[in-house]
Amino acid sequence: MAGNSFGDLFRISTFGESHGKAIGVIIDGCPSLVDIDEEFIQSELDKRRPGQSKITTQRKESDTAQILSGTFEGKSTGTPIAIIIPNEDQRSKDYSHIQDKFRPSHADYTYQVKYGIRDYRGGGRSSARETAARVAAGAVAKLFLKKHGIEIFAHVSGVGTIEAPNLDAKDLAALLETREQNIVRCADPATAAEMETFINQVRKNGDTVGGRISTIIRHVPVGLGEPVFDKLHADLAKAMMSINAVHGFEYGSGFDGSTMLGSEHNDIFVKDGDKISTITNFSGGIQGGISNGMDITFKTAFKPVATIMRDQDTINEEGQETTISGKGRHDPCVVPRAVIIVEAMAALVIADHLLKYKAYSTHAH
Amino acid sequence: MAGNSFGDLFRISTFGESHGKAIGVIIDGCPSLVDIDEEFIQSELDKRRPGQSKITTQRKESDTAQILSGTFEGKSTGTPIAIIIPNEDQRSKDYSHIQDKFRPSHADYTYQVKYGIRDYRGGGRSSARETAARVAAGAVAKLFLKKHGIEIFAHVSGVGTIEAPNLDAKDLAALLETREQNIVRCADPATAAEMETFINQVRKNGDTVGGRISTIIRHVPVGLGEPVFDKLHADLAKAMMSINAVHGFEYGSGFDGSTMLGSEHNDIFVKDGDKISTITNFSGGIQGGISNGMDITFKTAFKPVATIMRDQDTINEEGQETTISGKGRHDPCVVPRAVIIVEAMAALVIADHLLKYKAYSTHAH
Amino acid sequence: MAGNSFGDLFRISTFGESHGKAIGVIIDGCPSLVDIDEEFIQSELDKRRPGQSKITTQRKESDTAQILSGTFEGKSTGTPIAIIIPNEDQRSKDYSHIQDKFRPSHADYTYQVKYGIRDYRGGGRSSARETAARVAAGAVAKLFLKKHGIEIFAHVSGVGTIEAPNLDAKDLAALLETREQNIVRCADPATAAEMETFINQVRKNGDTVGGRISTIIRHVPVGLGEPVFDKLHADLAKAMMSINAVHGFEYGSGFDGSTMLGSEHNDIFVKDGDKISTITNFSGGIQGGISNGMDITFKTAFKPVATIMRDQDTINEEGQETTISGKGRHDPCVVPRAVIIVEAMAALVIADHLLKYKAYSTHAH
Amino acid sequence: MAGNSFGDLFRISTFGESHGKAIGVIIDGCPSLVDIDEEFIQSELDKRRPGQSKITTQRKESDTAQILSGTFEGKSTGTPIAIIIPNEDQRSKDYSHIQDKFRPSHADYTYQVKYGIRDYRGGGRSSARETAARVAAGAVAKLFLKKHGIEIFAHVSGVGTIEAPNLDAKDLAALLETREQNIVRCADPATAAEMETFINQVRKNGDTVGGRISTIIRHVPVGLGEPVFDKLHADLAKAMMSINAVHGFEYGSGFDGSTMLGSEHNDIFVKDGDKISTITNFSGGIQGGISNGMDITFKTAFKPVATIMRDQDTINEEGQETTISGKGRHDPCVVPRAVIIVEAMAALVIADHLLKYKAYSTHAH
Repeated sequence: MAGNSFGDLFRISTFGESHGKAIGVIIDGCPSLVDIDEEFIQSELDKRRPGQSKITTQRKESDTAQILSGTFEGKSTGTPIAIIIPNEDQRSKDYSHIQDKFRPSHADYTYQVKYGIRDYRGGGRSSARETAARVAAGAVAKLFLKKHGIEIFAHVSGVGTIEAPNLDAKDLAALLETREQNIVRCADPATAAEMETFINQVRKNGDTVGGRISTIIRHVPVGLGEPVFDKLHADLAKAMMSINAVHGFEYGSGFDGSTMLGSEHNDIFVKDGDKISTITNFSGGIQGGISNGMDITFKTAFKPVATIMRDQDTINEEGQETTISGKGRHDPCVVPRAVIIVEAMAALVIADHLLKYKAYSTHAH
Repeated sequence: MAGNSFGDLFRISTFGESHGKAIGVIIDGCPSLVDIDEEFIQSELDKRRPGQSKITTQRKESDTAQILSGTFEGKSTGTPIAIIIPNEDQRSKDYSHIQDKFRPSHADYTYQVKYGIRDYRGGGRSSARETAARVAAGAVAKLFLKKHGIEIFAHVSGVGTIEAPNLDAKDLAALLETREQNIVRCADPATAAEMETFINQVRKNGDTVGGRISTIIRHVPVGLGEPVFDKLHADLAKAMMSINAVHGFEYGSGFDGSTMLGSEHNDIFVKDGDKISTITNFSGGIQGGISNGMDITFKTAFKPVATIMRDQDTINEEGQETTISGKGRHDPCVVPRAVIIVEAMAALVIADHLLKYKAYSTHAH
Repeated sequence: MAGNSFGDLFRISTFGESHGKAIGVIIDGCPSLVDIDEEFIQSELDKRRPGQSKITTQRKESDTAQILSGTFEGKSTGTPIAIIIPNEDQRSKDYSHIQDKFRPSHADYTYQVKYGIRDYRGGGRSSARETAARVAAGAVAKLFLKKHGIEIFAHVSGVGTIEAPNLDAKDLAALLETREQNIVRCADPATAAEMETFINQVRKNGDTVGGRISTIIRHVPVGLGEPVFDKLHADLAKAMMSINAVHGFEYGSGFDGSTMLGSEHNDIFVKDGDKISTITNFSGGIQGGISNGMDITFKTAFKPVATIMRDQDTINEEGQETTISGKGRHDPCVVPRAVIIVEAMAALVIADHLLKYKAYSTHAH
Repeated sequence: MAGNSFGDLFRISTFGESHGKAIGVIIDGCPSLVDIDEEFIQSELDKRRPGQSKITTQRKESDTAQILSGTFEGKSTGTPIAIIIPNEDQRSKDYSHIQDKFRPSHADYTYQVKYGIRDYRGGGRSSARETAARVAAGAVAKLFLKKHGIEIFAHVSGVGTIEAPNLDAKDLAALLETREQNIVRCADPATAAEMETFINQVRKNGDTVGGRISTIIRHVPVGLGEPVFDKLHADLAKAMMSINAVHGFEYGSGFDGSTMLGSEHNDIFVKDGDKISTITNFSGGIQGGISNGMDITFKTAFKPVATIMRDQDTINEEGQETTISGKGRHDPCVVPRAVIIVEAMAALVIADHLLKYKAYSTHAH
């Protein structure tokens, strides 16, 4: 209820502030006998880690995951898997200038009013540092999904007004490899270069810029998703909107679909060997809230990071007008690191629904 | 878990199929001593009711709500409020032609595979008829929120490629009155006329078209929303995405915000009499997942209705190719009726978070 | 959260007051393709029904269940099953004498303070009439469990200080038949006769008496129950303690076990054909919160019914001392009717855990 | 769902195995601005700690709590409070003799079948070591309840067949002091001495013995508890039954009450200054599932510890008959340490219901 848990059957609870001793997560509901590949978990964290390139914040954190429980001889035991990530480079002094000021478009003001107290250092609990815990948990979810052949791929499809062309998505593993060859994490190399140049320019101006991430989930069985309220795309939407800075979500045809006619938009069923598939996929792999076996596709929009290297007017805790200066470490554009957070949250949603599917589906037994 | 409930503290559970005996809802968690105005509940249902105008389905349903429990002498007692809405004009025979065929972009196929059985009449549980139960529950939520001075207003801001201009939103009650003066439920009369003409043309072509609904929630106290996963906008997103045909959600600056620079996008705090407000509202009234006292604004995109009056190729339950003919009653454009569903779900989200706020907030006590 | 739902995956939500229009239940999470035998559901309700014998309340209610949704051609469809039971013989006038008085050991006082309003007629929501909805839902759970070969048997093992001898429990179906041959629902005919005589005498004195119910659940697979907090016996305890008038719960060796030595109490594992069983069963079929394949056994203690046919001192809503007279219809001893409620709640707990087992267990797939 | 969380609004999630790196807990939903007194938390852990006296296990654990998050300058911030307790004296080798054998009346067999894998060292997750995390969380709950004047007191009221006389419970603080003056934690010194002698004798025989704990909760406002399923005593029952080795729970008159007549058992309301109280308290402070302002009283029965220092027959993982020898460290009687666990779980239940009360109660606002 207090909002720090996600999922029902594959459930995570995260904790930790930007400048506390550690952040971490408990994963409750991971089935037993999943290979818990610690190197893989670490490699996922490395993709989200600050300081990984010149277009990310220069905070130095190794983000080293420590598994405290829930595994035995390399496998999950069915009991809660607790992972902690100690905080290292905290530089709390950097934040003394915002101790009693509300940074624009940050959560300082709302936390202060809601709780009557806040850890102002680095945004405390509202910091995107919390997402490292999600990435660790998402890595475990991916290891579980791997047993079921399910693949998840996300990449940066837009930065500012720059938009990547539609991908040929036949081989997700190849796209992933391409994506990791540039620091923007766009799977189209030409667009990636353009984005990188633009982000660098924004950074030099002490400014920030928003962006978009597109995701494909493949090989999900037909039948995941619980009508009426827990539709698969509704849970994906909540998962994505819970990520810091996300302001929009669409799946399948999305907002563009709302401008179309039904005769254009309907996905016609056809025989596809032993299976049934659809010619088009405006439904984004989900019909009536339930996966139909086609690729699940969705897009997520991120606002520009609120921390900019410029002076801004604002209000302090006493309600007086004041000015806040642009200091500290920040990302000029959050989407290159957010790609891995989007994948993590997608993995958690699919893992949760896969367990519900096992519980309920007549076919699964 | 099986997906037919929504909310934690103000919680609804709906039931019922398109052609069963009745649909309905249990509202669990409505505080005691709320005036349960049955006329208001019915007037809300009337706005969602089929057959209300020439641009909605001609199914004849009075959608008469019966309250079975939870009230005493006109007030809520704190116990579950059960409301049923009997089904009347079922014409189940109309559906014999789709008994064993999967309608394109409907839930027939996914339900059949998931459950191994389905009530094919009118889409069974996947029918948007279920949303009448949400509207009844949403009306109760609105009555609860009214005690706290909270207002909710939605209208049709787009149909196909037609887009309404931004509204002057000073007086929501006046906008509501304007909205109800046209059958499209757009609060801009000129655009409404254009939309109506277009929808009529689409209907005559046996086709359907998508649209968009914009919503404003006003007078929400500072402090609603639970970080990290149950951010206020994340719960709004889930609520909206759970409505039939919704393919997209954005709040505040939304997708457009992802093209902006931080220096353009930040909402600067200013003194506003006794209160603190922001000059712009790209944050859509929510910062760090918590309401900041400004108007909460979001937009929802609906795909075109899948039932069209044309023949379409498809597959039957035996996996054979076949053709499905365009018969039955349908809406050429769902957004005019969906306005009230969007408001209902918004009211349920805010009611739920208001109770959480009372539970947790130091200020609320 | 508001307390009118039970279970996670096989989840029920009940509604209704003693003297409202109807009571009822939504069952959310019953898997599809279960035969929904309406005659069986009704026969279960008939066993709980008031007026069934001279030792139960003489309120006349046919308790006729109406299924409103969730079934198609006699089978569950996986969607919510809504069942309503209209109230018939309400005689609300009988309650005018308690309109503003707090009946001793009833919920009148606590409801009034908690909610600031209450439906005083027949106890409103606090009436045991609510348990009819549980019995209807429990009957559906039993139909689901039947597919898995699981049997549940309860009987009255104690009334006042009268205690039935331990049963030879080889054949639960035979015990059930014996139990139904007397109005006390004790499977030991000699004790049943003694109990009946005693209850009649208590009734003639205008008094009431408490009692105990013993339960056996058989053929539960090894592995149901989720450590640490959702131990199978912990969920059984909550289920039983939620039944009106229950003041105690014990499983396996229970309170007596707490007087024993470990060397006496340990259940030694032995080979039993292909299976593993234990020589004794002080563990009551549950070890570490998880079923071990042996009979699950527990006992439930019911206080005497609070409504007695005698004058009693009390306080009214204005806080003044007053006297309340003994009127109305009541049960001299609640356990004969409660047997079926205990079975229903047990069935709901096992059904819920069976679905969790399917979700999580490596063996189930 | 996977069972490692407890509570809804004041919610804890525990993790950790007996011989892993650490155990711990996340407390989600503790309101902000509670003084988080670390010394108090540690003193509570010290009362549960192994090795504290000659009648407890000699495992050496300092059980030092480390708070990782959720506090700022000594106060709770409203964000999750994570506490870890590193494991120190693990002596995993002590368990090699049970690596593939199922200890009688332990969870070895059920875990192995349920999960297909288990951490056999010290019982892994099924070890009562997990309860240290509950005690840490319970201490935080007590600090929250202290702000509301609520007191909780438990003591050992029975060991084997030895039973303490009823206490004069006017001064709970004084009783607590008396209780802490003996190693059995019985607040009646004479009985405590008798119990200690008996436990020592049992220990010397390599045996174990069960016992009972009685609890009083004082100054709970009228109105806590949510009918119908989440009755206050039903949640207390689940909380207590979830503690390792608990086989029985009763509140108020309990099992004895089931032998009484209604005319004896009814609690008559009387004026008590400004308040309303009852002459007797067979209701145990709870009526209709809701606190009535009187002392909440309940009793919990613990079976004898299953680990005994004797050889026992059993079965191994291959299903073969074998013998298991009595080795390792164990408690001859668990109740002296369990007193603090019972108090912790009681505090968690009351804290959770206090938050629900704030959310729902008309009086609380």
